[in-house]
Amino acid sequence: MEKTDFKHSTQIRVRSFDVDSQGIVHNAVYLQYFEIGRIEYRRHFGISLNSNGVFSDGMKVVVARNEIDYFKPAFLDDVLSIHTKISWIKNSSFCFEQLITNDSSGDKICECKGILVNLNSDTNIPELLNAEFVKQIEVFEPNLKLIKNSIS
Amino acid sequence: MEKTDFKHSTQIRVRSFDVDSQGIVHNAVYLQYFEIGRIEYRRHFGISLNSNGVFSDGMKVVVARNEIDYFKPAFLDDVLSIHTKISWIKNSSFCFEQLITNDSSGDKICECKGILVNLNSDTNIPELLNAEFVKQIEVFEPNLKLIKNSIS
Amino acid sequence: MEKTDFKHSTQIRVRSFDVDSQGIVHNAVYLQYFEIGRIEYRRHFGISLNSNGVFSDGMKVVVARNEIDYFKPAFLDDVLSIHTKISWIKNSSFCFEQLITNDSSGDKICECKGILVNLNSDTNIPELLNAEFVKQIEVFEPNLKLIKNSIS
Amino acid sequence: MEKTDFKHSTQIRVRSFDVDSQGIVHNAVYLQYFEIGRIEYRRHFGISLNSNGVFSDGMKVVVARNEIDYFKPAFLDDVLSIHTKISWIKNSSFCFEQLITNDSSGDKICECKGILVNLNSDTNIPELLNAEFVKQIEVFEPNLKLIKNSIS
Repeated sequence: MEKTDFKHSTQIRVRSFDVDSQGIVHNAVYLQYFEIGRIEYRRHFGISLNSNGVFSDGMKVVVARNEIDYFKPAFLDDVLSIHTKISWIKNSSFCFEQLITNDSSGDKICECKGILVNLNSDTNIPELLNAEFVKQIEVFEPNLKLIKNSIS
Repeated sequence: MEKTDFKHSTQIRVRSFDVDSQGIVHNAVYLQYFEIGRIEYRRHFGISLNSNGVFSDGMKVVVARNEIDYFKPAFLDDVLSIHTKISWIKNSSFCFEQLITNDSSGDKICECKGILVNLNSDTNIPELLNAEFVKQIEVFEPNLKLIKNSIS
Repeated sequence: MEKTDFKHSTQIRVRSFDVDSQGIVHNAVYLQYFEIGRIEYRRHFGISLNSNGVFSDGMKVVVARNEIDYFKPAFLDDVLSIHTKISWIKNSSFCFEQLITNDSSGDKICECKGILVNLNSDTNIPELLNAEFVKQIEVFEPNLKLIKNSIS
Repeated sequence: MEKTDFKHSTQIRVRSFDVDSQGIVHNAVYLQYFEIGRIEYRRHFGISLNSNGVFSDGMKVVVARNEIDYFKPAFLDDVLSIHTKISWIKNSSFCFEQLITNDSSGDKICECKGILVNLNSDTNIPELLNAEFVKQIEVFEPNLKLIKNSIS
């Protein structure tokens, strides 16, 4: 992945409690950073989060898979950019592809593919993604793969 | 506070993600450790936690105040003991006093006074502590101060 | 404490991992928020953090005490302001007073008094605060108490 | 992966601060649990961690990749088992395969493949795994793949 593949970015600063005993950002913390990127990506379309973890448009998503490659360490007080896109959408699931870069050096720090599943917010059973969400992403993401008639 | 003031202790091990950029346990993490002590204290009386954060006997408590003194740093892989007692009970609030010691050196690491308030689990309004809880603690804690007719 | 008592504020947004099983920001997380406020307060004077947790002007501080009063819960996606000042300075220690408010409702969420101790960054023994730091804060904080000839 | 594939397991209890705004363990927290499993796996062979994040036998490892599949949510106060094995070893890298199960229901919660790289603890450049480590794991893991003459 390259920075230029992304239309959405958000910044964070590395805090002392993000850093572990080796003096580098702990591998679990990047999943917090990636989540910040995912939420801010949706906020770009005017969607916020209700206090119960359901989005303001009624979508409730859970993470089914995360795949992270770590390239270089990040350190205390570094400013990092989290670049986020949606690469494919199936019936009830979709994939975030994300890259984190160091704002000062330009270095790639890590990248992630995360598969999210849309749940009915009452029954917690997977359900079809709403048409408006799919349309928004289709318009926004030039290289989106729309995989219809899939089983997930 | 001294170790000998306490009848309940539980152990934890310092993990890499508990340690910060200075190589010591981060000051916020001790509030996680103190909470582990508080929950295990109640488990000693056969009480567990429901998934919504309410105890199995119906008690729902929130933290109103924490007062922590930090004496010595703790490091990665240290085994620490969390010593816990209840020092006073009012109508709807009570106070945990807690001490953390290093199992290997015996050093005092930090201590905390935490004031908890009992809420009605439907309305979230403070309500009288149930009599059974008060009785349990009265029996267990030799130096408990029971402050009746108080306003909180 | 009141918002108007402070000359420095910084904002954060509540993230899903800041919220606990009761659906509110966990009591330990506020110490992370307060630390963000403390670091940004120093950044206001042009000071940043080296990767080893020592400030760029050579100051190394550790937390000796935190005293937090929790007034109202904060929820997912809330935007909070962290208001920070230094209220007193002794020979080698000083006190942050801080207030967190909800940007939307204006409600006070919690407040903290934190005592920090300045260490020699080689020996980790408390040492006199540097004169430039003391002068900066004296100029900036209208109500600072400067307590000289103290023993800490 | 199945529980019976593993010779090493360790237990943790889900804490209130591990749970997020949806009332379930946050997806990032499982990487903390997996790390606990990895450290305890090594402790089984008598190896502990120094305070700088280097193991007592001189090994310093960093995470190069994590691949996590989430099957079912875990909830507050659940007791989980973290099952850990090493599935392959190359010249300077090796792979942990791990499964988390719920002790009460027996359900599979999630599984992870994590690739770790051995660094020279002075230069932070990848270096050959020490022979004693490789031999220990060869003896312990019946299905280990030893991939010699590899480039990583």
